[in-house]
Amino acid sequence: MDSDYGVPRELSDLQKTRALYRPELPPCLQGTTVRVEFGDATTAADPAGAHVISQAFPHTYGQPLAHFLRATTKVPDAQIITEHPAIRVGVVFCGRQSPGGHNVIWGLYEAIKLHNPDSKLFGFVGGTEGLFAQKSLEITDDILSTYKNQGGYDLLGRTADQIRTTEQVNAAMASCQALKLDGLVIIGGVTSNTDAAQLAETFAESKCSTKVVGVPVTLNGDLKNQFVETNVGFDTICKVNSQLISNVCTDALSAEKYYYFIRLMGRKASHVALECALQSHPNMVILGEEVAASKLTIFDLTKQICDAVQARAGNDKYHGVILIPEGLVESIPELYALLQEIHGLHVKGVSVENISAQLSPWASALFEFLPPFIRKQLLLHPESDNSAQLSQIETEKLLAQLVETEINKRLPYLQKEGTYKGKKFNAICHFFGYQARGSLPSKFDCDYAYVLGHVCYHILVAGLNGYMATITNLRSPVNKWRCGAAPITAMMTVKRWSRGPASSQIGKPAVHPATVDLKGKAYELLRQSASSFLMDDIYRNPGPLQFEGPGGDAKSISLSVEDQDYMGRIKLLQEYLDKVKGIVKPGCSQDVLKAALSAMASVTDLLTIMSSPSFGGRAPI
Amino acid sequence: MDSDYGVPRELSDLQKTRALYRPELPPCLQGTTVRVEFGDATTAADPAGAHVISQAFPHTYGQPLAHFLRATTKVPDAQIITEHPAIRVGVVFCGRQSPGGHNVIWGLYEAIKLHNPDSKLFGFVGGTEGLFAQKSLEITDDILSTYKNQGGYDLLGRTADQIRTTEQVNAAMASCQALKLDGLVIIGGVTSNTDAAQLAETFAESKCSTKVVGVPVTLNGDLKNQFVETNVGFDTICKVNSQLISNVCTDALSAEKYYYFIRLMGRKASHVALECALQSHPNMVILGEEVAASKLTIFDLTKQICDAVQARAGNDKYHGVILIPEGLVESIPELYALLQEIHGLHVKGVSVENISAQLSPWASALFEFLPPFIRKQLLLHPESDNSAQLSQIETEKLLAQLVETEINKRLPYLQKEGTYKGKKFNAICHFFGYQARGSLPSKFDCDYAYVLGHVCYHILVAGLNGYMATITNLRSPVNKWRCGAAPITAMMTVKRWSRGPASSQIGKPAVHPATVDLKGKAYELLRQSASSFLMDDIYRNPGPLQFEGPGGDAKSISLSVEDQDYMGRIKLLQEYLDKVKGIVKPGCSQDVLKAALSAMASVTDLLTIMSSPSFGGRAPI
Repeated sequence: MDSDYGVPRELSDLQKTRALYRPELPPCLQGTTVRVEFGDATTAADPAGAHVISQAFPHTYGQPLAHFLRATTKVPDAQIITEHPAIRVGVVFCGRQSPGGHNVIWGLYEAIKLHNPDSKLFGFVGGTEGLFAQKSLEITDDILSTYKNQGGYDLLGRTADQIRTTEQVNAAMASCQALKLDGLVIIGGVTSNTDAAQLAETFAESKCSTKVVGVPVTLNGDLKNQFVETNVGFDTICKVNSQLISNVCTDALSAEKYYYFIRLMGRKASHVALECALQSHPNMVILGEEVAASKLTIFDLTKQICDAVQARAGNDKYHGVILIPEGLVESIPELYALLQEIHGLHVKGVSVENISAQLSPWASALFEFLPPFIRKQLLLHPESDNSAQLSQIETEKLLAQLVETEINKRLPYLQKEGTYKGKKFNAICHFFGYQARGSLPSKFDCDYAYVLGHVCYHILVAGLNGYMATITNLRSPVNKWRCGAAPITAMMTVKRWSRGPASSQIGKPAVHPATVDLKGKAYELLRQSASSFLMDDIYRNPGPLQFEGPGGDAKSISLSVEDQDYMGRIKLLQEYLDKVKGIVKPGCSQDVLKAALSAMASVTDLLTIMSSPSFGGRAPI
Repeated sequence: MDSDYGVPRELSDLQKTRALYRPELPPCLQGTTVRVEFGDATTAADPAGAHVISQAFPHTYGQPLAHFLRATTKVPDAQIITEHPAIRVGVVFCGRQSPGGHNVIWGLYEAIKLHNPDSKLFGFVGGTEGLFAQKSLEITDDILSTYKNQGGYDLLGRTADQIRTTEQVNAAMASCQALKLDGLVIIGGVTSNTDAAQLAETFAESKCSTKVVGVPVTLNGDLKNQFVETNVGFDTICKVNSQLISNVCTDALSAEKYYYFIRLMGRKASHVALECALQSHPNMVILGEEVAASKLTIFDLTKQICDAVQARAGNDKYHGVILIPEGLVESIPELYALLQEIHGLHVKGVSVENISAQLSPWASALFEFLPPFIRKQLLLHPESDNSAQLSQIETEKLLAQLVETEINKRLPYLQKEGTYKGKKFNAICHFFGYQARGSLPSKFDCDYAYVLGHVCYHILVAGLNGYMATITNLRSPVNKWRCGAAPITAMMTVKRWSRGPASSQIGKPAVHPATVDLKGKAYELLRQSASSFLMDDIYRNPGPLQFEGPGGDAKSISLSVEDQDYMGRIKLLQEYLDKVKGIVKPGCSQDVLKAALSAMASVTDLLTIMSSPSFGGRAPI
């Protein structure tokens, strides 16, 4: 099985040209000196969970942020590393494949070799299974040559995205020790990075000298927080899907007789659906977050879509395009409850054939109402992260069927009060999943992944453990990007839920998928245009992913409109505090000191109130 | 409904750049003089059907080929047209939407206006329904501006691809007369062009002065014969689909745990599947033509795929990609027979619910064996051309299910003689249909369609009726393209089949879809690599459709390898004959004359034998 990994392969003309593309490095990573400045100790984004997290991660919680600086920056307390003894690093594809993953390896390899040609990079083959089984190959120029700027994870392969059980963690540690690794880089999404943090903690506790670093690579775009603006792969996936959605919109408009229901990948969160909607302007997009916030039932949703179809029929329009995120099924309250019951029965060991008989009367009634194909899909075993097998549940077909039934009920010739007057409703369903995931990565994803690879090296030579490589200010050109690292524990939250009477449970600390921010600018942009999208068919076709000319350098719309740069602001705050210190030195006038005290007292009061749990608690993301 | 047609719309950056692209014209169409040379009278490709066709088309059968020449060519008997009175032309999207259709209109418009600014072009809105209802709009620069080099048919829209019943033909004629049209250009595939020929014949018979011209625009690539090398849209569709197939191949190779079954559009013929296989090198492609030629049953096919899966498992490979043309279901003998029975019951007016009860015992047994989802799909009403609703029949799911069942039977722990030793078989199914059809057209399709539009004008000013616009030598650069026109009747064949004992029926003459030539070079290329594709995973990723840089000017592989240029050879033969005439003039020596007679006698004998029905009959395509 492993024999094919790392084998150079034949490339098409376009792939060859892409293989020659060389991403730029931001100024802070250029040269052979690593300069790192540490910020304040971090806390958790959710203050209420801080205690739980700190207990679970005694060795790795509360570490400071790290900023990597240009060689020429004059920062007095920056740590300057000019000696680079040879190091040994391992890298593993842990999460699901996402375009750009290969470039993390390339960037890491280049940084390692640039600082000391005797350093070595080992890739674990076959993903986590290779890590556990100590199967690796040394990365070389030759091996990388046909994988630079290319899609997929086929250089090393992947298996499950889990390093969690004691056996798995011990096997990973044994593997790192056998290869005498100074560092282990884990490429993946929320699950893999949670596991990376746990691995770092266990390694630290066991005095294993391997440092663990995580890299945010997931097409879902849901590893998003104050430190992480977007993920490697998201840009490409949204561009490839938007092209296809736009093609379908053009098709709908040409024949004017079909409603297309398109389900998109993205797991629980609807980031992909939101971005694709902003790029291609379909008639409707149903975000899981909206549905969850409004507690819409499947019947409410059906009615909403039917009302839209009816309104369009009123304008003599019998076509349309509706986007549905694959996570929608878990956002619809009663379907989620049903899935939870099914999941509970799975855990109890009830066989698939017997599950339906053991459902509660309420869940059973819903289950029996659903069409057979969807029943079968709901009964599938859950994924490794306990969520339903979202890619296998054809929510788009369920909605299309329900809408068709409801529209037919509204036809005047079937009942007198018929409100839908017009042509027959025709639905065509699509799932845009695996056909985008293996795409050649966009220029942005190539750049982002390559630079993140470099950042991983800087983290390792700074001796940091349990950190994630971060780049902020991503919407600016590469030469304005800020590179740093944040402890993964600072991105964790703790889930609380009550199950049964008078018992309350708290979950394990984890990096949880970030949902679409319904107060964010990207969502606001969508809402502003929603009625025009619905009625006016202002479809937009960004076209196929380009590497030259217009669109080649485009970034995702949600990244461009959202005002992020948290790391930049953290640095700016530090500068203000330093300035105050600089002005109010011993020897300054009493008046200046009094003014400073008074001003700082009110600032402190204000921030204390804003940060109290009763004010909302959670730090804004 | 019509209010949206022809409305300028907002374009993305890439669309704007594409809208500025200007295809080149071959030398023969440059300038304002039209020079046309007529070849010999045409016959039908199928000599056996010639009589039937000539009887059905008394006014339009047997017309000569037409070649359009450069203004500077010295051909004594070429007709030279320098006067260009204002003309009025109508154009209608008739077939299914295919990328590049808008450029036919653009090219036609430019040619019309170049030769006389007072000439007018009218587009029928809403496709054939607009033609019947006399709904049209005048094409202007302004209307065209945002549709140049853009996908879809949304400038004018389309409805059904049929102009066939007496009412429809009469309505079309009334429409042409009401608008005082000198010409009507019909954009479509095999069905639409057959209808165009019929319309031309009826118009000629009724002394309606409108000339009818067909243009070969169909993504299926099945309007292929000695005059037509490829169709507008085929190149784009194959490129978009090949990108997606390649992405899936990369994905398969990254995780090594799924078999992907991908169904491709293309109707009855497998041209799209063949071309995509040549571009992306999936593990298997099942061509309908192979299946039909070998009379493989669905069980044979299942076994073939299972054997392949088993052979790969022997090499520790548990992933793969299998392409399936949508027309496959009609190529499998027993499924075709079942579909024919169902179709017969539809025609008899049997309702869908009662069909299964009225099937013959044999067909009923097969029907009951099939999974419920496919039964439902087989019962759908047939399309306007009497074929099954291929886009709705999920053959890929049927095969995946049958393969899974069979592989499970081969597992050793279920039966002692288990031959499949390895991991679980997992299938994921995809249908790549509507998401490619609305794509921005490739450069080739933009050029081809635009030049065809110009050719239509030349056909009309030459006064030709019932012709199709043709361009040959397409694999060479545009400046080597040969432009001409061939009577549509010369592309027709007559189908014969026996139904029931001692009765034989012949069908109506029609342009029939050309199937993949199993003796052709493209197919040979596939067969040469088939075992390597199957076992070695030599996937190739042509990448997303590019408009600049590598791949931007690529043409389809089947076009590039096939040795066509029939029209060029017809011209070359004429030159040889003229040369013989030139050498053997009255006054030449007796010896020369004797040699010429002897040589020509043997040539004539040879050709007579080769063209006799007993020798194979059909002209090679």
